[in-house]
Amino acid sequence: MSMILNRRDLEFLLYEWLDVESLTADPRFAEHGRETFDAVLDLSQQIAEREFAPHNRRSDLEEPTFDGSAVTVIPEVGKALRAFADAGLISATFPASVGGMELPQVVGRACFAWFQAANIATSAYSMLTMGNAALLLEYGTPEQIDTYVRPMLEGRYTGTMCLSEPQAGSSLSDVTTRAERQDDGSYSITGSKMWISAGDHELSETIVHLVLARVVGAPAGVKGLSLFIVPKHLPSGARNNVTLAGLNHKMGFRGTTNAVLAFDGATGHLVQAEGQGLAQMFHMMNEARIGVGSGAVALGYTGYLHALAYARERLQGRPPAGKDPSAPPVPIVRHPDVRRMLLASKSYVEGGMALILYTAKLVDVGETVLLDVLTPIVKAWPSQWCLRANDLAIQVHGGYGYTREYPVEQFYRDNRLNPIHEGTDGIQALDLLGRKVLLNDGLRVLVSAISATADSSSSPYAPRLLAAAQRLATVTAKLWAAGDPDKALANASTYLDAAGHIVIAWMWLSQLDAAGDAEGAFYDGKRLAARYFFDHELPRVGPWLDLLESGDTLLLDLDDTVL
Amino acid sequence: MSMILNRRDLEFLLYEWLDVESLTADPRFAEHGRETFDAVLDLSQQIAEREFAPHNRRSDLEEPTFDGSAVTVIPEVGKALRAFADAGLISATFPASVGGMELPQVVGRACFAWFQAANIATSAYSMLTMGNAALLLEYGTPEQIDTYVRPMLEGRYTGTMCLSEPQAGSSLSDVTTRAERQDDGSYSITGSKMWISAGDHELSETIVHLVLARVVGAPAGVKGLSLFIVPKHLPSGARNNVTLAGLNHKMGFRGTTNAVLAFDGATGHLVQAEGQGLAQMFHMMNEARIGVGSGAVALGYTGYLHALAYARERLQGRPPAGKDPSAPPVPIVRHPDVRRMLLASKSYVEGGMALILYTAKLVDVGETVLLDVLTPIVKAWPSQWCLRANDLAIQVHGGYGYTREYPVEQFYRDNRLNPIHEGTDGIQALDLLGRKVLLNDGLRVLVSAISATADSSSSPYAPRLLAAAQRLATVTAKLWAAGDPDKALANASTYLDAAGHIVIAWMWLSQLDAAGDAEGAFYDGKRLAARYFFDHELPRVGPWLDLLESGDTLLLDLDDTVL
Repeated sequence: MSMILNRRDLEFLLYEWLDVESLTADPRFAEHGRETFDAVLDLSQQIAEREFAPHNRRSDLEEPTFDGSAVTVIPEVGKALRAFADAGLISATFPASVGGMELPQVVGRACFAWFQAANIATSAYSMLTMGNAALLLEYGTPEQIDTYVRPMLEGRYTGTMCLSEPQAGSSLSDVTTRAERQDDGSYSITGSKMWISAGDHELSETIVHLVLARVVGAPAGVKGLSLFIVPKHLPSGARNNVTLAGLNHKMGFRGTTNAVLAFDGATGHLVQAEGQGLAQMFHMMNEARIGVGSGAVALGYTGYLHALAYARERLQGRPPAGKDPSAPPVPIVRHPDVRRMLLASKSYVEGGMALILYTAKLVDVGETVLLDVLTPIVKAWPSQWCLRANDLAIQVHGGYGYTREYPVEQFYRDNRLNPIHEGTDGIQALDLLGRKVLLNDGLRVLVSAISATADSSSSPYAPRLLAAAQRLATVTAKLWAAGDPDKALANASTYLDAAGHIVIAWMWLSQLDAAGDAEGAFYDGKRLAARYFFDHELPRVGPWLDLLESGDTLLLDLDDTVL
Repeated sequence: MSMILNRRDLEFLLYEWLDVESLTADPRFAEHGRETFDAVLDLSQQIAEREFAPHNRRSDLEEPTFDGSAVTVIPEVGKALRAFADAGLISATFPASVGGMELPQVVGRACFAWFQAANIATSAYSMLTMGNAALLLEYGTPEQIDTYVRPMLEGRYTGTMCLSEPQAGSSLSDVTTRAERQDDGSYSITGSKMWISAGDHELSETIVHLVLARVVGAPAGVKGLSLFIVPKHLPSGARNNVTLAGLNHKMGFRGTTNAVLAFDGATGHLVQAEGQGLAQMFHMMNEARIGVGSGAVALGYTGYLHALAYARERLQGRPPAGKDPSAPPVPIVRHPDVRRMLLASKSYVEGGMALILYTAKLVDVGETVLLDVLTPIVKAWPSQWCLRANDLAIQVHGGYGYTREYPVEQFYRDNRLNPIHEGTDGIQALDLLGRKVLLNDGLRVLVSAISATADSSSSPYAPRLLAAAQRLATVTAKLWAAGDPDKALANASTYLDAAGHIVIAWMWLSQLDAAGDAEGAFYDGKRLAARYFFDHELPRVGPWLDLLESGDTLLLDLDDTVL
């Protein structure tokens, strides 16, 4: 079996659980069917195995370098990206009008997860390009689409998103990059952008930067932000005034350049209209947040599969009761504590993958309220718990897992970025409790969806899920009853923890119902992982909700000079 | 303030909480007093700051190399180790009879924590030497003490412990290294040893390996193990038949060489008597386990102090209720979620440090039953939760924390070893529930000690601690009622989680009582951290004990082929 992802699980999730074949009733997807879905899954797995996985460690050991004029990335990266583009995978979920395959998002996500699991750093160049192209396809003029989107979808150009600045990481209202209107309708962009993934390299003919900036005279705060296309090269082929000020050297994710970019009167082109920057950027950002969650799941998943394979091979020790020293040692998968780590990981990564694909299907069917409320959870939950699977994969390997001779330590380091970028998990918590549960009655929609699953399930876990979801609703109402955002949000991260675990329990109950009484090891595995999640994980939610219900304001009130 | 450790906290713990001055009533410590304790603490802090901290990152970037004949370590390591030895710190807690300062263990631990926090990798060479010397002082002949212990205490020799083998990591009963008795009373040692920290280098005149091996004809299992002194060099100065087969390349802790050693008919000298190897090795191992816990606390502690300093400096965002974009950004320590991370970390690292020093004092006063039952917790709890503090320190730093330009990512990578070595945390869990709670009625002694603190406390937290401790006793009795070790131990790690959190809550209640009504920021900080631990952390114990009480055998019974 592949140690990148479990194809059988993906097929269960797509066909037996989410019934993605039913999407072909939508005229957009009418050309498709299980055969085309399987073909793209096959293709993705093959390219991921042949072109992405083999250079994963080399990318980590030989990170990109900058000699003052150009950035050097190991050649395997460019080769892999060309294979990805040549297979039509950049535009897989894009409309036929721009040359895309028009695959449902849910299938596209399953395909892309192969690349994220095989080599998260190389896959990031593609992910940013796809997000950038999707944004411009939504908001760009036909000319901008021809000039930028088509070459990106063909793999000739790559894209970035330039939001953060050295003085403003999570706080976009403090963005100071300046845009000055020019006589020819273009804008002159000046400022410094930080943490720009894929921000510079020689992997593409040019790089399309999407830059959040403030037009001179625009209001303070996020309302004054506009979005600009700033290409690395001008139409003449000359360099635009965008220079690489330096590369960041990271703990992991090293194969993706991460740049400080200096815009010094660079030529930029407004996207649509001034003052729309933040709303437009969130089009890309929301997709990127799902992409981050998907990357976190993918890394956790491959870590789990490596740990499982190791635990089946490695012989050591004997069960406690049978400590006959002359008996042969057993595979460590026989030890309950190793099983605990593996089963926990399975419940995290398969639960996380279910959430990713479930959410992607919401995009396909246009259930935007549920999509909106789930987005912060999709980003944050896997970045915490599938990272935990990577931590457990190291532990299952013992000393070997701590060495760079085994891949699991890199998976951990790579995944450790995910709780940070595209809005830290703390930001996701504020977004969930401060905005999404209220917006369009998001929490009610979520709790209704969970309740519908629980109501139609005959599993003994259903009442436990229902009780937890209802309690989440009660606690949320109580938190907001006073109408005091500071108080309501004092324990937002704990709220996210609770909501996340309830959502994953929901994913497990729903998978369990899809598995039904089907026989075989695969289905038994699903049932055991569900049981683990309900018995060992869901109970964590109780104390979290207790704390929230108590209205504890310790974190709000404390005098931080005493720390 | 130092960002290595908080001296004020150490003084509180040593003098206001543990009253270490009272130890001077013991004739062994009669020469000492607060002045000498403070002087050694001062000295430790100075040497840690001047000689250990400055090369911490360089040790990580330029890890030891082996050119086939000798191992090269950056020169700062040798210089630091000489400064440590020249200050008399190797023998600080050793008796005057071998030139030691005869400091109480509890003071020695506080001193050594400075070195672990400043540079865990360099400090490891000293830690292993001290543990090795202590073992030989206990079990060696006067001649062995003169030949090996004295030069180690003078810093001329260093020491190792050689237990694991490639096929036997945690499972010592499978050790196959062979010892053949020679006519001259020595033994010829042949076998391969793995994961040997400080296993080879040129930092000392020679290296004293303590090797666990099986005398030809000895019984299988741990009963057949004996311990041998195998020096790297023979008295003639020639090399013994111990060769470096290779260095392991680790995720962190890179400055400490970690070796595979080949013993090929090497000359070894028996320690005391055959068949005593495991018991003797546990003398060193138990001390090493406390040392590992101490290292985990120290790394978490310095990570916390770095995060706190960063959070006070870094300006970003505004509190949710006051989102006036024209208001200046606030230091991120003002955000409740950042406070959550800092206060959680403070509760982990100060709680962990309290446990380390409390346990060290048990050595001084000879309370061995309590010491024995606490040892697995002292090793495992900090290696899980103070590692969590390092994880949170990265998160507080945001993107910066993920770069190698800031030290917190190294602290995390360094600390990630601690749940693995000297017996994985899973092994500690089996030791606690399978052995220590039963041995000499260990759990009763522990619960009595906790109850005594709770009974004499007027804090509102006291009844909650008492209830948790009593429930732990009830659950333990229930687990063992059937007398079936496999069933009792099926969820041993969950048991360790629960016991660990209860013990740290005890440390907090006890510190709280020591703080009393004292005024000032320092004491307010202690009160807030205690409140955090009782309100946000101790409640985790409920679901863990529920699971244990349910007698869940999922992990024991499962058919692992379905994973």
